[in-house]
Amino acid sequence: MLTDVTAFAPATVANVGIGFDILGHTVESLGDRVRVTRIEEPTVRIRNISGIGGELPLESARNTAGRALQAMHSSLGLSYGFEIDIHKGIPMSSGLGGSAASAVAAVVAANALLETPLSLLELLKYAMEGEIVASGSAHVDNIAPCLFGGLILTVGIDNPRVKQIPVPASVRCVLAHPHMHLGTREARAILKLDVSRSDFVWQTANLAGFISGCYSNDLDMIRDSFNDVIIEPQRHSLIPGFMDVKRSAMLAGALGCSISGAGPTVFAWAETQYAEAVRGAMVAAFAAHGLPADHWISSIENFGARIVKS
Amino acid sequence: MLTDVTAFAPATVANVGIGFDILGHTVESLGDRVRVTRIEEPTVRIRNISGIGGELPLESARNTAGRALQAMHSSLGLSYGFEIDIHKGIPMSSGLGGSAASAVAAVVAANALLETPLSLLELLKYAMEGEIVASGSAHVDNIAPCLFGGLILTVGIDNPRVKQIPVPASVRCVLAHPHMHLGTREARAILKLDVSRSDFVWQTANLAGFISGCYSNDLDMIRDSFNDVIIEPQRHSLIPGFMDVKRSAMLAGALGCSISGAGPTVFAWAETQYAEAVRGAMVAAFAAHGLPADHWISSIENFGARIVKS
Repeated sequence: MLTDVTAFAPATVANVGIGFDILGHTVESLGDRVRVTRIEEPTVRIRNISGIGGELPLESARNTAGRALQAMHSSLGLSYGFEIDIHKGIPMSSGLGGSAASAVAAVVAANALLETPLSLLELLKYAMEGEIVASGSAHVDNIAPCLFGGLILTVGIDNPRVKQIPVPASVRCVLAHPHMHLGTREARAILKLDVSRSDFVWQTANLAGFISGCYSNDLDMIRDSFNDVIIEPQRHSLIPGFMDVKRSAMLAGALGCSISGAGPTVFAWAETQYAEAVRGAMVAAFAAHGLPADHWISSIENFGARIVKS
Repeated sequence: MLTDVTAFAPATVANVGIGFDILGHTVESLGDRVRVTRIEEPTVRIRNISGIGGELPLESARNTAGRALQAMHSSLGLSYGFEIDIHKGIPMSSGLGGSAASAVAAVVAANALLETPLSLLELLKYAMEGEIVASGSAHVDNIAPCLFGGLILTVGIDNPRVKQIPVPASVRCVLAHPHMHLGTREARAILKLDVSRSDFVWQTANLAGFISGCYSNDLDMIRDSFNDVIIEPQRHSLIPGFMDVKRSAMLAGALGCSISGAGPTVFAWAETQYAEAVRGAMVAAFAAHGLPADHWISSIENFGARIVKS
């Protein structure tokens, strides 16, 4: 019987601009690794956190990975326990789904230690419990893509339906993470409670066009629809230089550019041949506003969290 | 050279529940026929209106077909004119896109009389001018499907992008048109100007799920997503018995049921084998509320308005 398993869970771009709270996609090039060890004591404890998340709480109930495994542990009534080692590869509070990735990697690893492994939808529920620690409410727009992989639509919270949407193979995701702090709660608090009907119609048209463009490999439709008229206009002032970064990305050939999750990371979609230019343009635009930025180019692959060592 | 051409344009279900102002689909089994004759006098005139629309205005500027051809005529600066005969097959003010069908049939017929025929997108513009006569504002959610055929997404008004979305072959559209009057303006005036953010998120999830389900032939996803949480709740009280009609349709096996356009026609999607039962259930439910109803079952074919005689 296995006694310890390590899982990798990728970073994720939630919202994808036009899909507030319902869309998200994986980013292959960065992620968290979580090692879960089966222990005799029927408890969940965190042994160590390494990587770029050194200030995360070691107390299970306050840590997304710990809380997710606590939820799984108590729901299944296990007679043994889990010890967790977290290696953070995703910057904290970056808008790249770091808290989701730790929770997802933890449940995927722990699942491999169970006598009867659970379905991905069951794992989703436990990982969501972890996400509540981080954002204060249950959201699946990072967790679902992190777990299932690729571009994921989730409908509903209590019994979420999950749908993988094809992404044209030529599309890359470009990320620029400016060195600044922006909390998810702050970015959510700024949002109005209402949406005008005309903005609503416009946004639904764009969302429908975007999804339709993905299914039909229609890059023109993706580009023309890649325009969040509701959330981005309310949030972009939280990110210095955002409008310049976006303009630069579009001029460099991006299909679209918006805020990753609650920010401050800015993401763009671009065809492979434009990805380097888009990255350079985005980083230069942040620099012009005095913000150094980390940057990545990633494919959007159809696989999510997975066992990397057992 | 042709001197007269007759075109058929199908009825359409606008909104399709979850796609307010952006989705619409054709209904093969009923439509309008418009004959356009080239005349020497450089004007647009209506000779006759027959069928089930006897009270429509004969004055071109007040008739959707007349107004659409006036727009085409003046924009192209034609030295000759058009005479129009309209045969209405679509009930007036039924929510089945009758005004759009007459305008679309007129521009499609007239197009065949031009030396240089126009593109469908150009015809769309002129037909929209006609629609303004009927609804007071430019809407394409009936016109675009009527012209292009099938399930159509339109994004934007000034330069509309049009996308045909595949409909699973097993799906039929069931229509029940209760004998009552409900004006488009009245049905629009009842709508609130704002949408709550949570309803907005819920509706976008359903819309995205619906489109995704159509592309991937996923009838479960279509059924689970076929739920308009924004417009239908505000409008259904205008249609006596609507909630019973909907409930009956769903119990009889429908995938979804909502208001066609601005109503009062109620439409349902159902797999072929349930279509007759759904129709019977809807008609019986309207009857229980004292409303006789016309009814149709139709496939959703990928063709729109077309020349039927030249």
